[in-house]
Amino acid sequence: MLRIGIVGGTGYTGAELLRLLARHPQALLTVITSRSEAGLPVAGMFPHLRGQLDLCFTEPDPGTLAECDLVFFATPNGTAMRAVPDLLERGVRVIDLAADFRLKDPALWEQWYGMPHACPELLSEAVYGLPELNRAAVRDARLIANPGCYPTAVTLGLLPLVASGAVDPSWLIADAKSGVSGAGRKAETGLLMAEMGESFKAYAVKGHRHAPEITQNLAQFAGAQVGLTFVPHLVPMIRGIEATLYARLVDPAIDLDSLFADRYAGEPFIDLMPGGHPDTRSVRGANVCRISVSRQESMPGVVVVQSVIDNLVKGAAGQAVQNMNLMFGFDETTGLEALALLP
Amino acid sequence: MLRIGIVGGTGYTGAELLRLLARHPQALLTVITSRSEAGLPVAGMFPHLRGQLDLCFTEPDPGTLAECDLVFFATPNGTAMRAVPDLLERGVRVIDLAADFRLKDPALWEQWYGMPHACPELLSEAVYGLPELNRAAVRDARLIANPGCYPTAVTLGLLPLVASGAVDPSWLIADAKSGVSGAGRKAETGLLMAEMGESFKAYAVKGHRHAPEITQNLAQFAGAQVGLTFVPHLVPMIRGIEATLYARLVDPAIDLDSLFADRYAGEPFIDLMPGGHPDTRSVRGANVCRISVSRQESMPGVVVVQSVIDNLVKGAAGQAVQNMNLMFGFDETTGLEALALLP
Amino acid sequence: MLRIGIVGGTGYTGAELLRLLARHPQALLTVITSRSEAGLPVAGMFPHLRGQLDLCFTEPDPGTLAECDLVFFATPNGTAMRAVPDLLERGVRVIDLAADFRLKDPALWEQWYGMPHACPELLSEAVYGLPELNRAAVRDARLIANPGCYPTAVTLGLLPLVASGAVDPSWLIADAKSGVSGAGRKAETGLLMAEMGESFKAYAVKGHRHAPEITQNLAQFAGAQVGLTFVPHLVPMIRGIEATLYARLVDPAIDLDSLFADRYAGEPFIDLMPGGHPDTRSVRGANVCRISVSRQESMPGVVVVQSVIDNLVKGAAGQAVQNMNLMFGFDETTGLEALALLP
Amino acid sequence: MLRIGIVGGTGYTGAELLRLLARHPQALLTVITSRSEAGLPVAGMFPHLRGQLDLCFTEPDPGTLAECDLVFFATPNGTAMRAVPDLLERGVRVIDLAADFRLKDPALWEQWYGMPHACPELLSEAVYGLPELNRAAVRDARLIANPGCYPTAVTLGLLPLVASGAVDPSWLIADAKSGVSGAGRKAETGLLMAEMGESFKAYAVKGHRHAPEITQNLAQFAGAQVGLTFVPHLVPMIRGIEATLYARLVDPAIDLDSLFADRYAGEPFIDLMPGGHPDTRSVRGANVCRISVSRQESMPGVVVVQSVIDNLVKGAAGQAVQNMNLMFGFDETTGLEALALLP
Repeated sequence: MLRIGIVGGTGYTGAELLRLLARHPQALLTVITSRSEAGLPVAGMFPHLRGQLDLCFTEPDPGTLAECDLVFFATPNGTAMRAVPDLLERGVRVIDLAADFRLKDPALWEQWYGMPHACPELLSEAVYGLPELNRAAVRDARLIANPGCYPTAVTLGLLPLVASGAVDPSWLIADAKSGVSGAGRKAETGLLMAEMGESFKAYAVKGHRHAPEITQNLAQFAGAQVGLTFVPHLVPMIRGIEATLYARLVDPAIDLDSLFADRYAGEPFIDLMPGGHPDTRSVRGANVCRISVSRQESMPGVVVVQSVIDNLVKGAAGQAVQNMNLMFGFDETTGLEALALLP
Repeated sequence: MLRIGIVGGTGYTGAELLRLLARHPQALLTVITSRSEAGLPVAGMFPHLRGQLDLCFTEPDPGTLAECDLVFFATPNGTAMRAVPDLLERGVRVIDLAADFRLKDPALWEQWYGMPHACPELLSEAVYGLPELNRAAVRDARLIANPGCYPTAVTLGLLPLVASGAVDPSWLIADAKSGVSGAGRKAETGLLMAEMGESFKAYAVKGHRHAPEITQNLAQFAGAQVGLTFVPHLVPMIRGIEATLYARLVDPAIDLDSLFADRYAGEPFIDLMPGGHPDTRSVRGANVCRISVSRQESMPGVVVVQSVIDNLVKGAAGQAVQNMNLMFGFDETTGLEALALLP
Repeated sequence: MLRIGIVGGTGYTGAELLRLLARHPQALLTVITSRSEAGLPVAGMFPHLRGQLDLCFTEPDPGTLAECDLVFFATPNGTAMRAVPDLLERGVRVIDLAADFRLKDPALWEQWYGMPHACPELLSEAVYGLPELNRAAVRDARLIANPGCYPTAVTLGLLPLVASGAVDPSWLIADAKSGVSGAGRKAETGLLMAEMGESFKAYAVKGHRHAPEITQNLAQFAGAQVGLTFVPHLVPMIRGIEATLYARLVDPAIDLDSLFADRYAGEPFIDLMPGGHPDTRSVRGANVCRISVSRQESMPGVVVVQSVIDNLVKGAAGQAVQNMNLMFGFDETTGLEALALLP
Repeated sequence: MLRIGIVGGTGYTGAELLRLLARHPQALLTVITSRSEAGLPVAGMFPHLRGQLDLCFTEPDPGTLAECDLVFFATPNGTAMRAVPDLLERGVRVIDLAADFRLKDPALWEQWYGMPHACPELLSEAVYGLPELNRAAVRDARLIANPGCYPTAVTLGLLPLVASGAVDPSWLIADAKSGVSGAGRKAETGLLMAEMGESFKAYAVKGHRHAPEITQNLAQFAGAQVGLTFVPHLVPMIRGIEATLYARLVDPAIDLDSLFADRYAGEPFIDLMPGGHPDTRSVRGANVCRISVSRQESMPGVVVVQSVIDNLVKGAAGQAVQNMNLMFGFDETTGLEALALLP
């Protein structure tokens, strides 16, 4: 059994990790830390874990964490980068669900996250944990930068188009919509149900942190400069991301369905729906990305991609478990077999 | 007092007309028809009207309708075009909230609505009832084609850009999101709360009827051919439309806020929010369109417009009352003063 | 025009007062205070007021408030009781939307609100502002204690039964359900949409502050000791309260519909629905209480009452305006004519 | 592997059975029937099953069903009673998720379900499938009447009180609230999201079919006549039932928590939360019933019980799988280990 630690388990990403690991046949959760909640039984904060998890939150302690085979960081941005070097030195492998190791360029990190990076020397080693992009590297990684929720949905939706040169990469548009759990578990009036319920809006229209992450992903596969306009929106629902993506086709005659089918052949967590309209409920609680690609007769030069995931599963905790499975040689789908909860 | 008739008042558009007209100081509702509900008190179907409206639904009867000064059609597409010619002949003015008279080209109508047009000769006379586009024509109209909900939000958001030549009209993208009341009051499993709740999806991604309507609106103001990619989405909320619009700027140096401010100076129902993120709740129940225009530093050549309305008010019944006010010389805002219901 | 001040206008009750007063033909809002938001334009916090209200929040200042004819307190419990005596002395009339003056017994106040009362001498003068209970007293009041949301729905539903002696007052049960806006606009994780959405629960099952308020109301009309079990619940919606009330009939043969019809004859804001199932959407945004009373064949000795209101309107701000109308001799319905927003 | 058939798998109960059985290690789904959808791939109707279930709906055929070891009926009331006798004769065991075999008295069935019973002779043999009531009988049953959703929540909440004689059984009140999936997957305007969303109401206040079922359950354990007032409500959410139960204590001094703890000791799917407020999200998707029992200081003679379940899991499909596990000697929790999906 793998000995597992979680640092910062009081947010939604942490809670989802707990839900998945509690049923993973190879994982033994040995420690979960939280400065604010130290001493509190985990099940006291998350009633769905009652009777399933006897752990209490504890103060973060390097010694205890060092006894783990793997430590997940489900902490605010900027926390993991301070603790990770020591853990790696002690031979612990790490999956960071925050943004600390996602951007390869420390200047870009500082620009978007407002603080200098604490261990830029690790950025080149850190593996971006999107298995559909670089499965082999994930297997051997000591340190995984688990992708953001928006970047997972958008990158998977655009990758076949950009990597094949089918579209002009300098003119990409990603209109993304997220359920409110994506905003995290923070005591802010803006996140109250009476503020967010029954309403829809765009936010961060001037620019969002996830844009440079998406650009970095696609740039590795694009022949030319990547130009992306990314606009996120808040949907009055708890879970789910839908991204509608627009790009200009180099050759309108291309067979889009084959292009996607070839790219994602054999992928266990990608489901292509030719001619379909994937809805977020079809992936609620499941580690799946459903994708549909199409064109409109009146504008055959524009490709439209729909990509849906559960922001807390394939967009966070589920993807982290998928990476764990690869890192430790388990079947990639272990502990991720649950079907979506519908209705 | 204006004598008013409503044909087909059992849908959400009809219900919203009833709510607004019941408080309009110049309007006297004298007849409301419904084949299916004839005999039923209106307040029996819509409890919020209890004690406010003593009318019962009646069988449609040209004689009774002919005694009205104005008749609203809140009927399914294809109904009004059969009854309107007779009413006009009898000297009754008409506002059609369906699509029958929106498209000037009968062939386009037949293509998108699946039936030949019953009175193509009226298409040229019919005035498209978007006052911000053609207020003068509305004043003198006998027959108003009240705009669709999506076309209202999208046209108002793109008009200043297209009319000024600030953007390339052949490359427009409209990513629109609507609350579920936009799908109407139909007994379909796809519209059940257990199907639509807590889920988000695109629909009609291959092409939607409102696209040609939007294109027709913009073409009148564009120097060149209009090319639009329009993708509608369903939001798990009851009311509201948000459209996020993307276009390529001819001159990235343009002052966008001034452009919009000049275009909409003095408009009573348009509220510009420079640098803002208009949310649909801010227009819930109100006849307002809130617009914000912006750019992202990384892609200065792309303009992003957010436009929000209440699909049942500025997107349907409220706009119809606004047109009525203009047609009969009332203050344009009469009966439309209510503030949005927030939270 | 009545000169009006609002103390503490940043919560939902304050926002709703602003929405209603902005359209009240006799009310001129001259000052609105907020320590935390002083200097901020009101419309900056509440976008639905944009273009309708030019006021900014200001620091509370007795001098300025003293120039008002009427001051509303939309403050947390325990605030009004400190400022009201001075205002009354200066000849300003006051409506407190908080709980400070609702309980006649200062000991009961201290027990439920955790602080000694600052001006117990005013408790006897303060008039409980439920017009259906004591309209005459409201007209002449200097100081109104505006009722709580639950007490309004429950008291109006039980009053005809208790006042007529039709039920055993020692055995009342009130199972009440409220939308989340009832919990207020507080930055607490428990109120986040991701916590409250798609979930239902009871709370304060051991006892809630509104229980003694309801008991006090009914005790004035009951021949015997009032015994009430009150359990509040949270509904995943923004507005609305539904209370289902259970009591034991003294004489099962009684005509319940007549009993209620007689009690509420002529009441402008009470709508009886014999045999109906009032839903909260039918009062959304409206100052109405809809009531239905019934019995089940298998248990003819138990009366079941359904009572619905909008917690922010008839349960708070609307009722406050109704009281204002009575205090200053306006028509009781002035500014409260708007129909519910449905759907 | 158990060979399983499902009759009528197009509703929410059927869909939930499919979700659970698709992951049950001992179950092999061999046939699923639907007259209306015969020929359609199951995954075409339920996208969350894509790639997990290759079956198509087929016309009901006794021959095919006879090859199963177990057949579930997820059909409208009145369907199973016509087909079950033949299947039992062919040696197939049956679990009916509808109401056909729940009421022991055929006259009561006819009164509440509006049709004579087709095989009253089986009513005495049919075992009411609430394991916490009669686990032993379930093990040996040929025919299981799977309980209704409300009766599961209400019976489990009242059983310890009634069976122990702690309360007066002639004076029970059950105020129950259900998510909208409880109303089924029917094309009715009353079930549209635009009708049910953001609104709360009671229904069937004059009497509901589940009342006699609950009464029958409790009567077996009550010393005296059972008198129940049952009022169901609709909550604007998809899944979940919360029942708040009120009863009169014979001896107010009783230790309620011990009473419940003793009754439910060792029950795998009942979780007692002393002093807690169970919320429906804590059981979303899980086969758990969470119960809390309490009293209010001001009314010590009244016991208040909160009971929550997921109406589609412990209230329907999950309970059916629990019964299947017992009938075929599997561990009672097999295939039901998934934790609730929170948030």
